[in-house]
Order: sequence, then structure tokens, then C-alpha cells
Amino acid sequence: MAKGLVKKDENYSQWYNEIVIKAGLAENSAVRGCMVIKPYGFSIWEKMQSVLDKMFKETGHENAYFPLFIPKSFFSKEANHVEGFAKECAVVTHYRLKNGEKGGIEVDDTAKLEEELIVRPTSETIIWNTYKNWINSYRDLPLLVNQWANVVRWEMRTRLFLRTAEFLWQEGHTAHATREEAIEETEKMINVYSQFAQEYLAVPVIIGKKTENERFAGAEETYCIEALMQDGKALQAGTSHFLAQNFAKAFDVKFLNKENKEEYVWATSWGVSTRLMGALIMAHSDNNGLVLPPKLAPIQVVVVPIYKNDEQRAKIAERVEELSKTLREMGISVKFDNRDSQRPGYKFAEWELKGVPIRIAIGPKDFDNNTWEVARRDKLTKEIISNDKIIEYINQLLTDIQENIYKKALDFRKENTHKVDTWEEFKNIIENKPGFIEAHWDGTKETEEKIKAETKATIRLIPINPEYEEGKCIYSGKPSKFRVLFAKSY
Amino acid sequence: MAKGLVKKDENYSQWYNEIVIKAGLAENSAVRGCMVIKPYGFSIWEKMQSVLDKMFKETGHENAYFPLFIPKSFFSKEANHVEGFAKECAVVTHYRLKNGEKGGIEVDDTAKLEEELIVRPTSETIIWNTYKNWINSYRDLPLLVNQWANVVRWEMRTRLFLRTAEFLWQEGHTAHATREEAIEETEKMINVYSQFAQEYLAVPVIIGKKTENERFAGAEETYCIEALMQDGKALQAGTSHFLAQNFAKAFDVKFLNKENKEEYVWATSWGVSTRLMGALIMAHSDNNGLVLPPKLAPIQVVVVPIYKNDEQRAKIAERVEELSKTLREMGISVKFDNRDSQRPGYKFAEWELKGVPIRIAIGPKDFDNNTWEVARRDKLTKEIISNDKIIEYINQLLTDIQENIYKKALDFRKENTHKVDTWEEFKNIIENKPGFIEAHWDGTKETEEKIKAETKATIRLIPINPEYEEGKCIYSGKPSKFRVLFAKSY
Repeated sequence: MAKGLVKKDENYSQWYNEIVIKAGLAENSAVRGCMVIKPYGFSIWEKMQSVLDKMFKETGHENAYFPLFIPKSFFSKEANHVEGFAKECAVVTHYRLKNGEKGGIEVDDTAKLEEELIVRPTSETIIWNTYKNWINSYRDLPLLVNQWANVVRWEMRTRLFLRTAEFLWQEGHTAHATREEAIEETEKMINVYSQFAQEYLAVPVIIGKKTENERFAGAEETYCIEALMQDGKALQAGTSHFLAQNFAKAFDVKFLNKENKEEYVWATSWGVSTRLMGALIMAHSDNNGLVLPPKLAPIQVVVVPIYKNDEQRAKIAERVEELSKTLREMGISVKFDNRDSQRPGYKFAEWELKGVPIRIAIGPKDFDNNTWEVARRDKLTKEIISNDKIIEYINQLLTDIQENIYKKALDFRKENTHKVDTWEEFKNIIENKPGFIEAHWDGTKETEEKIKAETKATIRLIPINPEYEEGKCIYSGKPSKFRVLFAKSY
Repeated sequence: MAKGLVKKDENYSQWYNEIVIKAGLAENSAVRGCMVIKPYGFSIWEKMQSVLDKMFKETGHENAYFPLFIPKSFFSKEANHVEGFAKECAVVTHYRLKNGEKGGIEVDDTAKLEEELIVRPTSETIIWNTYKNWINSYRDLPLLVNQWANVVRWEMRTRLFLRTAEFLWQEGHTAHATREEAIEETEKMINVYSQFAQEYLAVPVIIGKKTENERFAGAEETYCIEALMQDGKALQAGTSHFLAQNFAKAFDVKFLNKENKEEYVWATSWGVSTRLMGALIMAHSDNNGLVLPPKLAPIQVVVVPIYKNDEQRAKIAERVEELSKTLREMGISVKFDNRDSQRPGYKFAEWELKGVPIRIAIGPKDFDNNTWEVARRDKLTKEIISNDKIIEYINQLLTDIQENIYKKALDFRKENTHKVDTWEEFKNIIENKPGFIEAHWDGTKETEEKIKAETKATIRLIPINPEYEEGKCIYSGKPSKFRVLFAKSY
């Protein structure tokens, strides 16, 4: 099964695509740019959702649901937002079909909407239009709401999970009485994302702020987490925006403060999407397929029996059921792959491709010796474990794998983060080496744009608490006080 | 707060609407027919989702996600489906906006889709188009997939939760090797819905089959659960469809059976939606507001302190925290409403309106006597309970309330189910009395349609295992062997 996989170093992009398809995570649909998330892929996304949802609730947020459609005019209300989002959108113009004259069906021209509806690319406008009626006084604040939803951005070049026309995400939209509180919320949520990425995805991320160019359309400040993929490109894995009073002003959302004075409300928004699936796949997988962190693996342990006859099969099955029962009671998800239609070798390859963290095999010899053969997916190594130690071993191994793949990704990032001080070196590294570049920048839009035009590298982030260091902008030579992070990116 | 609520008997429809709005469940949005589900309403829906999702998984189903958009031509492929669904749909015709000449934004005419996309009203077509690539042999079957999603049907007259242009739902889509297995699945899922409605919503339902007229467009058989609302109208709360080979034929989905012969695949689909919220509200609520079954109540117990000074407030708070802690450890959700800005009477009315099953009050006298005042929402009665019995009492009371509201709804249905044998009586009852009518019908479409035209009553269902009884059709006088269920409906 895994045989068909192209090697990562030969064609990274094809390798990624083949893992997504062959591991049964997602596929392209009949609708341009829209993907089908298959059951195995969706079960990983469900695990992400469940952990994130818990983290949001623990930080005081509630879920709600707002309309899929947004009246076209709403987009023009916030000056910057319109530039960023009112572009590649799906537009609903009609609300009825009729039978065509030549068979088939046609759009009914008489059922034209007075005002076109936009399929939400993000929901700030419709939500702030709603908040206007929810917020009157400081007692109604803060409003801490999240939505799990589908959104549509008509991307021209799409890639499964990384960039699709429709994708699934969550978008938090909060309202606050003060600037300080809104900034605190913005920072709190980027920290939640960072914690999630590191503890669950096992993907090390760097927190920072975006430059003005890369900021969310309508935000005063955009915080992000950036991760390094195995091909040396950066991937923005989550963002949290301080929207100041921009949307409150655009939708006229005021509140009476404690001094009985009217003020505009302060806002944040923050989101992560099915793009995290892309990050997960690209950060850990190898030439044999997907490598899943145990905390997000739908199947944590797979057991493959090896037998020559029905008698052996039955004896082994009994022992496996016993083990599975104990493991399940501990909250470990176990699959017993007892299919008779496939040979063990095929099954090994299949579960490797699907990234199951631990594979246990048991044959007649193991049965007689009271042992199990335990293989770990991350290192592709095997050990023989005696039956009396197996439970403890598995439990510990799940923790080890989670830590090991995080460490591996972190080591990779460290090895591929370059401190660069000259323009020549910058150009050389960006062209020939993967990874992040830490370099001085003069803080201007012009320089940022010129660097991008010449090298395709963008400023991924400005560190939150940058280390003070006198330096010169690699491009303009002007003075700079700290380094920012450059990379090519997804 | 509850004062504003119109009485159920005076204006049922307004009463319903006021509960939805004032209890903070949902509201209309700026987009015609689309609702905003507010946090309190959404938290009830989340509880429904979580229970149903578990039931689906326990019956072997997995979740997946399919595109929001469906190419227009897909709808014409199944002859009956096109009649039922290719009508009031949201149609996407363009994929780009541009800045307008007079300010504002405009649809970019140059960005017109070659084939219009329909926002899914239901997903059979796009899913069976996908299944074509997933199914080759009997080994790929059964395919047991569910999707949680938003769908859009451009309804002209909308009502919060009951009928909205966009709504949330789940749609199961399964594929099977045999007719028998698909029918078994169809029946299994309608039983899951029935169990959910009765055990969780506390709404008694009757399972039956739809007549040809009322069947899902493209189904060979539609099973439904029907519930009786307090105004005597029926509400269809869930459906499960046996689709035979209709969609497999339309999308050319064949499999090699065990005899190595090609056959078309057998299909089912089944769904429940946010309409269940409407059923929940209408089945149990009273003139004081919402009445929630404990199993779906986001807050099961609310505690309201009564005090005259800070010292009392602090002492009471301490005792409440102790109680809350114990209850929470038992998995009971407790809210301590310690707001100082509102008086106890206001709080009582508010939590009544929001349907919290149990309200506990504690004042200085209760504090000194080591007692609590416990009020149950369903009966609006109160008891004084001593501190040493409170935990046990609350625990039992939650069970009692769940059972009592179910029994109440069941009694109501029994009282309002009429056996009718003549056309005069039928017309009289349908006009003057609420409820279900059990009557004989000759089994023809014509009779069914005439009865509907003259009385607005429809056949809600044909019982699955009808009691054999010789009789005559109330309308045509032709012979009939069992009764069917009539009602006016939502």
C-alpha cells in the first residue's frame, strides 16, 4: 500500500498530496476547490475540535451560530475589511430553480435577490451587526462568543486542507468595555492556540505579531502562530486579531459605561481552521505515510494477529480481546485488525500509512512465549514486550511518542533557523536552504515589499518580546533594534 | 421579566415566538429567513448533538464532510429528487466582487460561473457522486457515514427553529449490498430518533411510514417520527428514508457482489435538524416560559441567594459553593446566580423563563435552619429540604422531572387522539379540537388530497404494525383494513 508513495525529498508537494489521499484523509470533490473530508480525516478534525472547544469553554467562551449569508452592503461598512474580504467570494444572486425547456433545470430569472448575498468568508460584519442589539451597557460585556462553521473564499489555486474554497473553522468574536481587556483577550487566545499546537499537534510554533501588510483586514493588530514545515516553508497555523473599535464604529455598537457615558465597544476575533490538518500532516509525516501524535490519533494502537490456521487465529484473538479491553478501560483507543482477507504485511503498511502511533503484532511464537511485538510509528522500531509489562509499556510509549515527535519537529526548526546579517547571505539562504531567517528590518512597508518581490520571502512575524540588539536592516542598511522572522510560506 | 409573555391559550404562535426570543434561544438575523442561534439556545442544541452523535457512533457510523455547494446539473439526475428539491434554493452564480464606481461594492460580471452552484438543501446528490469512487466491491460495504452541516431551503414563510431558510442538521447517508440490509438500517435509525426524542427531549413520538405524497423526493419509503404539540398540531421530528437503488442508478454506483456480479448499491438517508429545538420548546413550555428536560438543560440547577447585607451574602455564598461542588462532582450542572445587581424575584422569573429544571433559594432563615428551598420548574411547586438530604433529593428530582414532563406530554397526546369513523365527525373534530385523528383511509392519493384540500389535515403516518380492523374510509366509504393518523401539522 505505502509502496505507491513518492519520496518526500523527491517531490514534497506530491508526497503531501499522496498522503492526504492514500491515508484516506480527504479528496477533491466535483466542486472546484471544495474538498470532501473523509471519515478518517474527519475523526482527526473532530478530536482537534473537541480539545479546542474545551479550551475555549474553560476560558469562558460560549458557542453560537450566525447566518451563512451576509448582505453584500455589510462588507463596505468597514473600510479596510472591504479591501481584504470583498473580493473572491461566492455570490448568491437567485433563490429559485425551475424546469428547463429542454429538460434539466434552470435558474429562475424572476427569482433574483434585491441585494446579493455573500457566502461568509469570515463573519465579523454579520456578527457585529447582531451585537448591536445585544450590547447596551457595560453589564452586557464582555461578550465571549465562538462559532464553529464553514466559510468560503474563492481561492484560485487550491490544495487539500491548506487552501480550499470551502473550509471548516472556528471563529471567536468577543466584545469588551476597554482597549486593555480586548488586547488581553487577543493575547490569551493566541496563547491557547500555541498551547494546543504544541501539546496536541506536537508542532512547535512561534508567537508573534504580523506587519501591517500581513494584518487581518480591519484589525489594529494581528497575532499569529507560525510553524515550520519539513520542506522549510512556514505555515501560519492560527491568528488572533485585536480589532480595536473598527467594527463597533462600522456597525454603530455603543455601550453605556459605568460613568453612564456612551462608548464604542472594543473587539477581538480569532480562528483556526482545517488548515491545522495540513500542518499536522506536513510537520511529522515520513516516506511511509502519516505520523500522528497519540493525543489526536483516532486509533492509538492497532493489533495485527499472525496465524496459519483457524485454531491459532481463535487463541490469539482471545488474548488480543483481553488486552484491548484493559487498554480501552484506560481510555486508549485500540483497533483489532482481525480481517482474514488481508495478509499481515499489507496491514502493517496500511496502518503505517495511516499514522497509527503503535502497532502490536502477535503470532504463534509470541503467544507461546507470552509476549507481544510492539512497533512505534515515529521511529519505525520494534521491541518484544512480555505480557506482564505490556500495559505499562504501551501507556508510557504513547507519552514518549507524543514527546518525541514534538522534539523532532523542534530540533528541525532549530537546525533550520538562520541568523542572517547581510543581503547577500539572505538571498543565498532563502534560495538554497529551507527554514526561518532571523534578520534586521528597518520597519518600513517599502523594504518589506521589496524583499518579498525579490525573494518571495515575507515577514512571518515580529517577536512579541524581541531581544534588543543593535543592527542594520539587511536590505536598506538603516538602523534596527531587533530581528524579525522571515520565510517563504504556504 | 416573564411578565411580558403572552398566554399560550391566547396566542399560541406569539407565545412560542416570545419564548424563543425572551429566553435567549434564537432571533431573526439581517438575512431574510436566516436565524441567529444565541448562546443559550446553542448550548441546548450542542447537548442534542452530543447525545445523537454518540448514538450514531454506537450504531457503527462515522462522520465526514461534503461540500456546501452542489453543481446544478446533479439535481436533474434523480427524476423524483429534482421535483422535490430543485426549487427554492440559494443559487451561486458569481465568484468575485469588485469596487463599485459609485463607492460600495458590486458583483463582478466577468466572474460568472460556467455552471451555477446550489447551496445544498440536502446532500444525496453530491454524496452519491462521491460514493461512486469509494465503492467497488462488497468489501467496501456497508458505508455508514453521517454529516453535521448547515443546509439552505429558501422557505417563503419562516419561523424560528421550525422553518428557516438556513438550518443546522445531521444527515446520515449509508450504502448497502442488499435491499434487506438497507431497510434494516432505515428502521434502525428511525428507532434511534424515537429513543432520542422520548428519553432526552421527553417528547413522546409515534413511528410510522409516510404516504407516497409525503415521501422524501427520491425515496421508496420514508419513515418518520411524529409528535403532538400543545396547540394540537403535529410536528414531524425526524425522518429516515429507504432510497432503494435510486441514487445509485442516478450516479452509476455499482459494486461487485460476492458472486463477482455487478449490482447497484442500496441506500438510506436520515436526518434531524434544529427543528427539534422547536419541538422541545412547544412540547413542554408554559405561560412562565421554557420548561427544559433535565437531560438537555445546559443549567440543571440554579441557586439564588437571598440576603440583606454583605455578611449574610458571604456566609450563604460559602454554603452554596460547598453544595455546588458536590453536585458538580456528580455531573450535575449548577449555576450560582450571585449577581448583586438584580433582586431575587427578578432572578426567579428569569430562570423560570429560561426553563432551568430546579431552582434552589437560600435566605438567612434557611441558613440558620440548615435548609434549602427547592422549586421544580415543571410543576412550579416548592419544598423545604434539610441540608443532609439535599444531594439525594436533587438527584432524584432531576429524574422525576424528566419522567414527569414526558408523562405529561404523553397524557396530553392520549387525551387528544380521537378515533373517528365518519366524515362529519372528522370535519368537526379537525376544526374544533386539537390533536391526532385515527381514521380509516382507502389508500388512494386522490382521497388523501381531497381531505387535505377540504380540512388542511394530512396523513401524518401509516402505522408500522397497524392493528387489523375492518372499516370504511371516512371520505370515500371504500373498505380499509387499518387506521392511519391524521392531523394538521407544522
